[in-house]
Amino acid sequence: MLNSITQLFGIRYPIIQAGMVWASGWRLASAVSNAGGLGLLGAGSMYPAVLREHIQKCKKATDMPFGVNVPLLYPDIDKLMEIILDEKVKIVFTAAGNPNLWTKHLKSHGCTVAHVVSSVKFALKAQACGVDAIVAEGFEAGGHNGREETTTMALIPLVKKTIEIPLIAAGGIGSGNAMLAAHALGADGVQVGSRFVATPEASSHDYFKTEVIKAQQGSTELTLKELTPVRLLKNPFYNKIKELYAEGASTEKLNKLLGKGRAKKGMFEGDLVEGELEIGQVAAQIEKIIPAAEVVEEFISAYNNKLGKLELFN
Amino acid sequence: MLNSITQLFGIRYPIIQAGMVWASGWRLASAVSNAGGLGLLGAGSMYPAVLREHIQKCKKATDMPFGVNVPLLYPDIDKLMEIILDEKVKIVFTAAGNPNLWTKHLKSHGCTVAHVVSSVKFALKAQACGVDAIVAEGFEAGGHNGREETTTMALIPLVKKTIEIPLIAAGGIGSGNAMLAAHALGADGVQVGSRFVATPEASSHDYFKTEVIKAQQGSTELTLKELTPVRLLKNPFYNKIKELYAEGASTEKLNKLLGKGRAKKGMFEGDLVEGELEIGQVAAQIEKIIPAAEVVEEFISAYNNKLGKLELFN
Repeated sequence: MLNSITQLFGIRYPIIQAGMVWASGWRLASAVSNAGGLGLLGAGSMYPAVLREHIQKCKKATDMPFGVNVPLLYPDIDKLMEIILDEKVKIVFTAAGNPNLWTKHLKSHGCTVAHVVSSVKFALKAQACGVDAIVAEGFEAGGHNGREETTTMALIPLVKKTIEIPLIAAGGIGSGNAMLAAHALGADGVQVGSRFVATPEASSHDYFKTEVIKAQQGSTELTLKELTPVRLLKNPFYNKIKELYAEGASTEKLNKLLGKGRAKKGMFEGDLVEGELEIGQVAAQIEKIIPAAEVVEEFISAYNNKLGKLELFN
Repeated sequence: MLNSITQLFGIRYPIIQAGMVWASGWRLASAVSNAGGLGLLGAGSMYPAVLREHIQKCKKATDMPFGVNVPLLYPDIDKLMEIILDEKVKIVFTAAGNPNLWTKHLKSHGCTVAHVVSSVKFALKAQACGVDAIVAEGFEAGGHNGREETTTMALIPLVKKTIEIPLIAAGGIGSGNAMLAAHALGADGVQVGSRFVATPEASSHDYFKTEVIKAQQGSTELTLKELTPVRLLKNPFYNKIKELYAEGASTEKLNKLLGKGRAKKGMFEGDLVEGELEIGQVAAQIEKIIPAAEVVEEFISAYNNKLGKLELFN
């Protein structure tokens, strides 16, 4: 099937593996790329030297296209970008920041650039900056998210109507059925995060993966809206946040509680008590840890299966 | 097309028009039923005698099946149910309460019963009570909503996996594309609210309809979570709620501000300043007021059109 996303990135299936902090290293990215999707390294949790190492290992592990996800608020952003270009990575997903400056730079070096947004307004801005594709992420997604709280079902048709470049749906994409739903809404491809956390290839701590498997409906909440809104799995650290809210705590106090390194502690080091655990609402749908290639196969198989069963009305 | 929802209700298309307060009178319900969907009278905003009048007018306006939506916390619930049975209405959608008692009663009188939920847990309970279908409503829906904040994209697959009876998706269904998406997720039909508010047949005040047309992304928010969570259009009344939150006001104070009759004031009387305006996130997608029959036609046409364009992967 010819598709604007598969053509843009030179991949078989329009399934992008999200470049998640503390989960998306070379093992996961190369496994997804080898399975026909697009693997992304999550640079947000990597020092520049670590990113270089992951890029080099990813190149050895796959001959297929892969990319890097870069949060534009990264403190050492210049160094990251230098490494990406030096290592000749040809696909960059940017997020959390203004794509204006870096899009031109990356494209002048032959990169294909996608930018992640949670609103129509920023989708339009990113398109004007010259990005090649938009990732529109709904409220149900794990990790950092938009203030409008627009869900994937409500967001994708709005963005689709507004932009002219290819559109990737993110948030709530936990199966091939949801991928089909996203395409029905007007997306040309999907970005999948949470489902890829529960794979052996994800670099997340096994304790965290086990919590993801155990999650039920209502196990996550979008919180810390006064700082940067983030969807967290409910754990003792989350409970501390709730206690502060109950006390009517200031933004300053919330910031102090959050501190630094909470995400690493929770998702990478497996501290389920003190750590921050970022995951999407689809965690409730995930029942077991399976290889990333199987995730891709299951998605395509379910997509085709369901599409074959839907009938026209007359 | 044979479908469990069309068969259950004896209708042509599995499009249920939500029984919304202050919007869903006999004009809207009969128009939707005549167009091949299922119209519902919204008993939640009707005195018993008013409901009887609407049922009788609806019968005169259509020979097709229609139903009544009943919030089970309605103070005069016994009287409403008596009228429904006395008038031989054969389809009842219940919401906001325990379906145990009334489901048996209604079914013993030959009614088909559907129950609205926002969680897997209550879907299971409703199924155990013997309802014929479940409406699962996501976070993006207008009006009252669940505390888990689960979006339609995340909720439908969870409920589908759990129940065995037909499933109707609600929340974020603003077009035929979204209807197709809901079916891809596993729903057998859709319940559409907000889109039907912006029709000439809706009994809502024209001022409110105009606000719905003007709504953009971020124009609604799920608020008053300490009372009953409700998704509201942002207006001066909503701003007053936000001011109370900023002051750290008690639940009591919030309740006092809300008072009684806010919804009628806003949606029926058109007081855009002091009234409560309930609408879903899809309001941002609605661009004009069109007849209810056109809404149904546009949905089916877009559903078929998009389904015809989706291709299998290989």
